[in-house]
Amino acid sequence: MKNIRMIRFYTAWSAVLALAVFTVLGYAQDVGDFRPASTNVWGAEYPRVDGQGRVQLRVKAPDAVKVRVNFWSNPKADMQKQADGFWTITTPPLAPGLHYYNFVIDGADVSDTGSQSFFGGGRYASAVEVPEPGSTYYSIQDVPHGQVREIWYPSKVTGGWRHALIYLPPGYESQTRQRFPVLYLQHGGGEDETGWIRQGRANFILDNLLAERKCKPMIVVMAYGYARRAGQTPPDLTGRPFGSPEMLKAMQEMAAAFEDDVTQALIPFIDKNYRTLADRDHRAMAGLSMGGMQTFQITLNHLDLFSYIGGFSGAGGMLVLGDRKLDPKTDYNGVFADSAAFAKKVHLLWLGVGTVEPERMRAGLLRLHTALTEANIRHVFYESPGTDHEWQTWRRDLKDFAPRLFQ
Amino acid sequence: MKNIRMIRFYTAWSAVLALAVFTVLGYAQDVGDFRPASTNVWGAEYPRVDGQGRVQLRVKAPDAVKVRVNFWSNPKADMQKQADGFWTITTPPLAPGLHYYNFVIDGADVSDTGSQSFFGGGRYASAVEVPEPGSTYYSIQDVPHGQVREIWYPSKVTGGWRHALIYLPPGYESQTRQRFPVLYLQHGGGEDETGWIRQGRANFILDNLLAERKCKPMIVVMAYGYARRAGQTPPDLTGRPFGSPEMLKAMQEMAAAFEDDVTQALIPFIDKNYRTLADRDHRAMAGLSMGGMQTFQITLNHLDLFSYIGGFSGAGGMLVLGDRKLDPKTDYNGVFADSAAFAKKVHLLWLGVGTVEPERMRAGLLRLHTALTEANIRHVFYESPGTDHEWQTWRRDLKDFAPRLFQ
Repeated sequence: MKNIRMIRFYTAWSAVLALAVFTVLGYAQDVGDFRPASTNVWGAEYPRVDGQGRVQLRVKAPDAVKVRVNFWSNPKADMQKQADGFWTITTPPLAPGLHYYNFVIDGADVSDTGSQSFFGGGRYASAVEVPEPGSTYYSIQDVPHGQVREIWYPSKVTGGWRHALIYLPPGYESQTRQRFPVLYLQHGGGEDETGWIRQGRANFILDNLLAERKCKPMIVVMAYGYARRAGQTPPDLTGRPFGSPEMLKAMQEMAAAFEDDVTQALIPFIDKNYRTLADRDHRAMAGLSMGGMQTFQITLNHLDLFSYIGGFSGAGGMLVLGDRKLDPKTDYNGVFADSAAFAKKVHLLWLGVGTVEPERMRAGLLRLHTALTEANIRHVFYESPGTDHEWQTWRRDLKDFAPRLFQ
Repeated sequence: MKNIRMIRFYTAWSAVLALAVFTVLGYAQDVGDFRPASTNVWGAEYPRVDGQGRVQLRVKAPDAVKVRVNFWSNPKADMQKQADGFWTITTPPLAPGLHYYNFVIDGADVSDTGSQSFFGGGRYASAVEVPEPGSTYYSIQDVPHGQVREIWYPSKVTGGWRHALIYLPPGYESQTRQRFPVLYLQHGGGEDETGWIRQGRANFILDNLLAERKCKPMIVVMAYGYARRAGQTPPDLTGRPFGSPEMLKAMQEMAAAFEDDVTQALIPFIDKNYRTLADRDHRAMAGLSMGGMQTFQITLNHLDLFSYIGGFSGAGGMLVLGDRKLDPKTDYNGVFADSAAFAKKVHLLWLGVGTVEPERMRAGLLRLHTALTEANIRHVFYESPGTDHEWQTWRRDLKDFAPRLFQ
């Protein structure tokens, strides 16, 4: 017993001390042009990124037979075993921005302990930030900073406490008589309410836009985009194929529960607890991918609540349109049937997509853009050059979208 | 190219949709008494915990030769391979509380994608929460909730922006004329500023104490406990053994930099930006393990700034005392030399340790407790029954410590 205790003692203190010193103090050894990524945990030498955007990865797996790296939008690539038990790889240049990845060690999908973790793909995933030369709009700068707060709000819809993040603009606390418009901003499928801050750096994007007087001060609310009604039994989807009617029905139920949660629990909570301008002229909603679909559903069902709408790489979406073209006369309760009425009611309809997103995703957004144009629906269509279904696209989207709000 | 794009499309949408449905909606299949842990990502069926505190773990690694689980305070244990490519294990009953762990897959230390991630051991680690029957003091309850905010403060000491979390008590925003005392609360070695919220649930502990009127409303500031001075070159510790003079020197430099950061950058920032009671009578500091050592160093060097002091499983510590007994006449600038003067100056000196912590850790705290008692230094010594060097000890510490502050 005594020996085990001593081992535990040294194990514990090794963690405390060796970590503090060897990694936190003694790191930052650059090799050539390669430097530790800004997304690493402090002290981790890998991943490294060079000036061309190439990424070097390393993982210790001395007894593994096969180790691969999986950048989520690329085919998996084999890593090479080194004599010291580490497996390594250097990628070709990656596009600037944040790239999710994981290792596959003898068939097991695992995260990289050298990376910070970002909730994506339904798990805490690894990611590497490849700098974009000249881009500072999503960096922390010496300008006034808004605050990011965690909130828990009670929801009778889901029957529990729900967690959300909220961004309050600089000056919110000092200008105690001012009220602010609100942007509800949603993450994508497999991500959560932390995505727009951790991956998207939305707080810094807004801080920097505000400092340049390019957008209005606003509150941003980032909610958790999954919901199940109180008492609802989870559907048994065992053996149901992807896209089956049972699965679509389950998704529609989830979407409807989230819609009710936003409109019946979240918005009233925010308007009660923060100095908001609590009317449709001062309320916007946008989201990426799944969040874009939710945005379209929620805003177009509740034009009494919203007047600014943004779909980032996701808008009409599978649940409503599938692969068919929008019918402006009938889809979304016919809100697109009268373009003059729509333009009067909706101050901004904004769609965006990256130029190298997967074809079918692009096709969906382009088809919607075309249908809206043909129906004379005033809207903005933005294409992010050279970026995929990824955070760099959505950072750019927010940078273009936010200045158009509440003008 | 088209085929790869299509594969990527389906990959992306599988993530978006299948995740949303199969995991978020379709989970919660209990097996006997085992239920998914509260620390799982939503939808993950494993880890599971039963009423006795046994934990079932599962990881998919179809091609691995050997998979072990490593609960950090126990010896590693082999997992068993199942026919479906998953490896499983059921542990003996674990003590209530949060337990860090990782898998070892063919020699690679990896996290469990089914677990939320908690920064510990210098990485985003997995952890499983084992409920403590009857304990609700660290659960979210239907009481007024304080706010947790993220802050970034500029530090001339380190030459950069530093991230911290701050808890503001319920009523902070509505009672705009009230000012509040402040507790600076530090994480342990290998952890970071998020530990006291994510692992410790400090916000809920304070919410619940406040709701029962057991403690005063206070602001809690949780800083990042590592620092290096602006322009300081990281020491080259290659080949220097654990505990070497070079390593101790590096640690002392880091500790001194953090001390300056707290006293010269963080405290002025907090007192400027929040409605604090900005004097020593209304300022406390406490920390766990490494944070306890930092607390002793910082508070005892700055009794002009602090009057309440807490050391949770860490206090005098390796840097100052090593394994020797405190000399009240000389250690810590001789603040313990005059017990009457100390009692007048310091309103609370609080030490705590778990009864099953590793012997040498217990010995250090007990030796300090004895030396303080012999020197007639008034202090509280609290022992957490049946808990190790782990979060359940520190949650209990905070529950005992906070009500004694600012009375």
